[in-house]
Amino acid sequence: MKYTLSVLVENQPGVLSKVVSLFSRRGYNIDSLAVGTSEDPTISRITIVGEGDNYTLEQMEKQLNKIIPVIKVRDLSGSNFVSSELLLIKVGYDKANLSEINHIVELMKAEIADVSKTGVTVRFSGEHEKCDTLFELLKPFGIREVARTGVIALEK
Amino acid sequence: MKYTLSVLVENQPGVLSKVVSLFSRRGYNIDSLAVGTSEDPTISRITIVGEGDNYTLEQMEKQLNKIIPVIKVRDLSGSNFVSSELLLIKVGYDKANLSEINHIVELMKAEIADVSKTGVTVRFSGEHEKCDTLFELLKPFGIREVARTGVIALEK
Repeated sequence: MKYTLSVLVENQPGVLSKVVSLFSRRGYNIDSLAVGTSEDPTISRITIVGEGDNYTLEQMEKQLNKIIPVIKVRDLSGSNFVSSELLLIKVGYDKANLSEINHIVELMKAEIADVSKTGVTVRFSGEHEKCDTLFELLKPFGIREVARTGVIALEK
Repeated sequence: MKYTLSVLVENQPGVLSKVVSLFSRRGYNIDSLAVGTSEDPTISRITIVGEGDNYTLEQMEKQLNKIIPVIKVRDLSGSNFVSSELLLIKVGYDKANLSEINHIVELMKAEIADVSKTGVTVRFSGEHEKCDTLFELLKPFGIREVARTGVIALEK
């Protein structure tokens, strides 16, 4: 079962390390992890997506709540939430295929973030699966480099 | 001095934990950290943004290169790169201010990801500073919740 955990922690050195090493030590599988500030600058929100059964998820939540600078753990798996990921993808191009790349970018509502001599960098934000789709659509042009953020999510 | 490190690591359990605990143990300051798959599904890219002098940065790179599943460390600080962050922000609304929110969303080239009874969720991707600007512009409407990914970057 896919889970999405939203973990609010105090924004202080070492907290991320505690959370990440808990997952590593216990062998919990993580598909993606994203960390950034929340609505309160003294509090960070860590979003973790992975696979696990109900028992494992319960254990995770219990263990996370034991870590002192963890303020709140919320399991978004069952609820209605908006989830998004950011993708930067650099592909090769030539005069002949630039308009084709542009067509895909428009179709997917992505953006061209930069054009240089060595490639076109496309920026896209949306659901994880849509990021995968854009990746597949741009593959034939020759993927140079990719950076992805991991998923973040908010309850609707 | 602000630095942006792009670290390619083997996509295996425990690597993120090793990287994060190195920073925590040595007291290196991190502003943001984002991890996601790279152009190769067996390799993850970790982007770390923080503050440090040249000596510290050199030490970080050396220490990171000692971690076995680390493949490549690149300091993007001096180079020309595209950097972006993803922001989800939920604000309150009423009939009177919905068009004003929409106006800001259009102006910033953001997107309305969801409208529910309790709020409007706005999605935005762009440079860190622009995410801050959007946050400030939406503040007067009452910020309910925020999730940010941390910065990712690719060389132009």
